[in-house]
Amino acid sequence: MSDLKSKFLEVYNVLKSELLHDPAFDFTDNSRQWVDRMLDYNVPGGKLNRGLSVIDSYELLKGEELTDEEVFLACALGWCIEWLQAYFLVLDDIMDNSHTRRGQPCWFRVPKVGLIAANDGIVLRNHIPRILKKHFKGKPYYVELLDLFNEVEFQTACGQMIDLITTIEGEKDLAKYSIPLHHRIVQYKTAYYSFYLPVACALLMAGEDLEKHTDVKNILVEMGTYFQVQASFTARIVVVICHQKSLESEDDYLDCFGHPDVIGKIGTDIEDYKCSWLVVKAMELANEEQKKSLYENYGKDDPACAAKVKEIYNTLNLQGVFEEYESKSYEKLINTIEAHPSKAVQAVLKSFLGKIYKRQK
Amino acid sequence: MSDLKSKFLEVYNVLKSELLHDPAFDFTDNSRQWVDRMLDYNVPGGKLNRGLSVIDSYELLKGEELTDEEVFLACALGWCIEWLQAYFLVLDDIMDNSHTRRGQPCWFRVPKVGLIAANDGIVLRNHIPRILKKHFKGKPYYVELLDLFNEVEFQTACGQMIDLITTIEGEKDLAKYSIPLHHRIVQYKTAYYSFYLPVACALLMAGEDLEKHTDVKNILVEMGTYFQVQASFTARIVVVICHQKSLESEDDYLDCFGHPDVIGKIGTDIEDYKCSWLVVKAMELANEEQKKSLYENYGKDDPACAAKVKEIYNTLNLQGVFEEYESKSYEKLINTIEAHPSKAVQAVLKSFLGKIYKRQK
Repeated sequence: MSDLKSKFLEVYNVLKSELLHDPAFDFTDNSRQWVDRMLDYNVPGGKLNRGLSVIDSYELLKGEELTDEEVFLACALGWCIEWLQAYFLVLDDIMDNSHTRRGQPCWFRVPKVGLIAANDGIVLRNHIPRILKKHFKGKPYYVELLDLFNEVEFQTACGQMIDLITTIEGEKDLAKYSIPLHHRIVQYKTAYYSFYLPVACALLMAGEDLEKHTDVKNILVEMGTYFQVQASFTARIVVVICHQKSLESEDDYLDCFGHPDVIGKIGTDIEDYKCSWLVVKAMELANEEQKKSLYENYGKDDPACAAKVKEIYNTLNLQGVFEEYESKSYEKLINTIEAHPSKAVQAVLKSFLGKIYKRQK
Repeated sequence: MSDLKSKFLEVYNVLKSELLHDPAFDFTDNSRQWVDRMLDYNVPGGKLNRGLSVIDSYELLKGEELTDEEVFLACALGWCIEWLQAYFLVLDDIMDNSHTRRGQPCWFRVPKVGLIAANDGIVLRNHIPRILKKHFKGKPYYVELLDLFNEVEFQTACGQMIDLITTIEGEKDLAKYSIPLHHRIVQYKTAYYSFYLPVACALLMAGEDLEKHTDVKNILVEMGTYFQVQASFTARIVVVICHQKSLESEDDYLDCFGHPDVIGKIGTDIEDYKCSWLVVKAMELANEEQKKSLYENYGKDDPACAAKVKEIYNTLNLQGVFEEYESKSYEKLINTIEAHPSKAVQAVLKSFLGKIYKRQK
């Protein structure tokens, strides 16, 4: 384990202990044990890339080594993002009736938890302002930090909403699915909190005014959108590659930024009638006959139907279409980044780009 | 309808329209319609006493008539509390698997809504900081307002947590139920947001520092706790009185501060194994034989068992015990209030007291 990661995990234990002794609530022994177990089960088990990237980004922006206190504060903000992610995942799993998450049963499926998990999600969410208040109240950027977390959470909830209402059972109509809708879902549901939020936290710590960095926001949201398309695309290929291997190998395949949330749902986009990049692209490129087949076979819980959809994906050469999208997207992003006036900001953005666009390196 | 209430409802429409055109999210037509309907279904249908009391309290604190702008802002804060309440109720109903709320099916039971309601609860919650940012950013008390809403939401979620984990199926043990536990559940789950929050909002608008008003907080939380005991007690009597009348009459009976949330669950505390004031008081006063009968009959889904529990309540004269608690609690509160140095604060607290302790007036 890297030094940074072990430092980061140390800070988790400090934050957890503070939360378990928060004077704003008079814990019973039972409730303290409950929260302790709930946090350990749901918060630190992911790849932690979102959280860790706050520290990396802040160091690049500062341009010199961080003091111990700065490292601690950057870790605390990183954990706030991990807490936010845990909150979304606990609730998403309930809404999607999922089975596993990060290689273990979803929290709501653990015996005696059940729908208490919904309130646990709320508790996770409420821990974020407790952490912020304890460690950042008094900092000149405290209020901007609160506004930032609020705005990004709002955008994520809205993204989740359009994803959910687009997929409502009984109103299946592929004609509603389009590239702009897909882009909107991915942008709001994932890109803001996964890509923009870590860098925005680092910018605030570095004393920057976020209002002046809408270009940075746009670049990161674009990267986040590309990343999600890549992840869902890779996931589909991985299913083919791994269908007779162990599940671990999927994980190896997607180890760049790590999306266990995506991995958890590998291969069921077609059956679940999801508005994925693949289906909207296919609808865009399909002839009348192929469209008809997509209408007939998409969103059916039948392997034969899914196979027909996959065959159309192959016929339309979506792999090639994706590769073209990938290189165009990369080129556009690198040009925008290199036009940015600050070398430090360029370094932050290029570090993200390098992690995501592996093949281009 | 009073002038104040119609003004308050006007402000709802302004806030709703702003939220439906929030530039932080790029709405689709479908998602805008969804949120519109979801808000109308869940936010304005209660008695609105929590929200309205912000305006009353602020006027008493200011000591003179409010300007139009002050009325608007007080209404906006009042609506934030109503939004908070709607968020809790939508999620509570899912967790409790409830059927009706405020005389209509619970939101998650509406066709095509289902578990999307969980995300709608999150959206409701996220509207609060949007309203606060739009109308209060730049006010000297903006950051205190954010901290206040965050802290009260945290306390409510913690109260809900101890209520839920106390009632976990399969671990039924009446010995765990005690007056301090009951007090803690009611205090955190209801009293902070229903009683303290409206007055705290008014204090902030009046330029007060909340740190200097912990006595006001304690008084309001005590009142909120008493109120909840009264409501659950009255509810039980109402069941007896109304068992052959229409449901409306319960509403007439509890029209002081109005707890449709309590009313929605009338008469099932015993069957649901709830840690209610009645059962903890009964356990405190019962002899060995009565305790044994409570152990055997509490929390069973059988009317004969519930009848035995009620008989013990009667034998122990819980009505009389409650009345004694009521008059002692009233006396203690009125003495504390009259010792408060500010006449304006006294007026605010007495106005709450008068609404709640009806019989003492």
